[in-house]
Amino acid sequence: MLEFADFRELSKTLRSEVDDALVATTEYGPDVPTHLAEAIRHSLLAPAKRLRPLLVLIACEACGYDRSKAMPAAVAVELIHTYSLIHDDLPAMDDDDMRRGRPSCHAKFGESTGILAGDALLAQAFEVLAADHLPGPVVAKCVKELAVAAGAANLVGGQHDDLGAEFADLGLASLEAIHRRKTGAMICVSLRLGAIIAGASSEVLTALSQYGERLGLAFQIVDDLLDLEGDQQLMGKRVGKDSEAGKLTYPKLLGAEASRQRAEMLVAEAIASVSRDDLSSGALIALARYVLERKH
Amino acid sequence: MLEFADFRELSKTLRSEVDDALVATTEYGPDVPTHLAEAIRHSLLAPAKRLRPLLVLIACEACGYDRSKAMPAAVAVELIHTYSLIHDDLPAMDDDDMRRGRPSCHAKFGESTGILAGDALLAQAFEVLAADHLPGPVVAKCVKELAVAAGAANLVGGQHDDLGAEFADLGLASLEAIHRRKTGAMICVSLRLGAIIAGASSEVLTALSQYGERLGLAFQIVDDLLDLEGDQQLMGKRVGKDSEAGKLTYPKLLGAEASRQRAEMLVAEAIASVSRDDLSSGALIALARYVLERKH
Repeated sequence: MLEFADFRELSKTLRSEVDDALVATTEYGPDVPTHLAEAIRHSLLAPAKRLRPLLVLIACEACGYDRSKAMPAAVAVELIHTYSLIHDDLPAMDDDDMRRGRPSCHAKFGESTGILAGDALLAQAFEVLAADHLPGPVVAKCVKELAVAAGAANLVGGQHDDLGAEFADLGLASLEAIHRRKTGAMICVSLRLGAIIAGASSEVLTALSQYGERLGLAFQIVDDLLDLEGDQQLMGKRVGKDSEAGKLTYPKLLGAEASRQRAEMLVAEAIASVSRDDLSSGALIALARYVLERKH
Repeated sequence: MLEFADFRELSKTLRSEVDDALVATTEYGPDVPTHLAEAIRHSLLAPAKRLRPLLVLIACEACGYDRSKAMPAAVAVELIHTYSLIHDDLPAMDDDDMRRGRPSCHAKFGESTGILAGDALLAQAFEVLAADHLPGPVVAKCVKELAVAAGAANLVGGQHDDLGAEFADLGLASLEAIHRRKTGAMICVSLRLGAIIAGASSEVLTALSQYGERLGLAFQIVDDLLDLEGDQQLMGKRVGKDSEAGKLTYPKLLGAEASRQRAEMLVAEAIASVSRDDLSSGALIALARYVLERKH
């Protein structure tokens, strides 16, 4: 079993590998307007947890494969995650002026550039994923899964329903249905891409999806709790905003104590899903525990 | 040589095949919010020329291949074209309230849904392209080319620079550099995808790119002339808007007569590019002529 201290070392190493790859990915040629390139780098290269790319790399290694082969997929999921943050922050959406400890993209570069920076990142994710380093059939499978996770049935649809969920009288099932699509699908696909690149069996893919779904919900609960109780400086964005905006959150629905218990139960289930002989699950288990401990 | 009347028949048939495929592509499951699905269909299924998907199908057939194999690529380029129209129309961008004879997407469904409908279409383009009907290596090549054409160096970068070009003192070279990226790249990639699926040689791909680049510029010149002189009802969008907005156009730069001459020269060059023994170029030639004749 991977100790907590070792996991912190590992995640630091992985994060640094991902950050280097993201820098290389955004060294654009002269055809990309400078102002647009700056806006993209401002949002993408801000200090961040890199949860989704870490999941890609950890899943790939858990399946016994060289994680460097999965780096383009890791970059792709972070490009899509960053695009979704930029668009979510727009005035017509959540209207947030801070993100990752910096002014949000549109706040610094203007609304039209914010929209275009997001659009460019979404397209580039597929460019990166389809680069020449992987066999064609693996690329095709990865592109399809990533597009579904990023699309109208998942990431985009979840954000759409989340915008409509303000002041709505939703129960736990509806709340989790939104989070499953808005956050869970991208977390699941991150794990799946790492495993697909590693040539994993469909049983392993299913196990990783179950792990990811539970991890995603637990992550969201902790996010809600941090929004309620967290430190604005550590979070890098305004806290208390969701509850002010009348947004439905776990603590509002279940209370803080029951929310934390639910997160703990989900993490335990996530860990059980990946405790299998055909997975080296040490890092996956340590990461699930870390989600409960995080302060930002 | 394909006669003009025959080309009109052919393009009507192709347009009807594309329209059917677009309807099938937007029959969404229950995970896609109804309001979002309606917004997507409102924009995508409005009557339109379908120039880009027609280019995919015509290029595929010109290379001697069954055009039905290229239909997913034809759908993909139209999804991306429609996403770009929806985002271009947003208040923070060109702020247009009419498109394809209907209220623009955000005007009817709200700004946040407009942003999300565009995002969803962009992601779905890659989902459609990566569906199981084509060999993996062909999918990988198509995804990469389409992502580059839709990305920061082309479609998105062109729109960024076009927004900045209002009242700017640009010459013909700068104007064409914008159009080459904003319109030309998607026209070129449409032709290339059809040919890649048909297994065309790199010489044929180069010839089609040359044809597409010239066709794209000619198309833009005619668009500028129609914006100046065209019939609003036929165009399905407000006319005279570009010149009112102080946007640089061909007629403004060269005068109407020289603009038309330039379009004619570009079309002649486009036709020369595809007049080759290894291409059945009848429909490509007829289409290039049609671009000069169009009234909307």
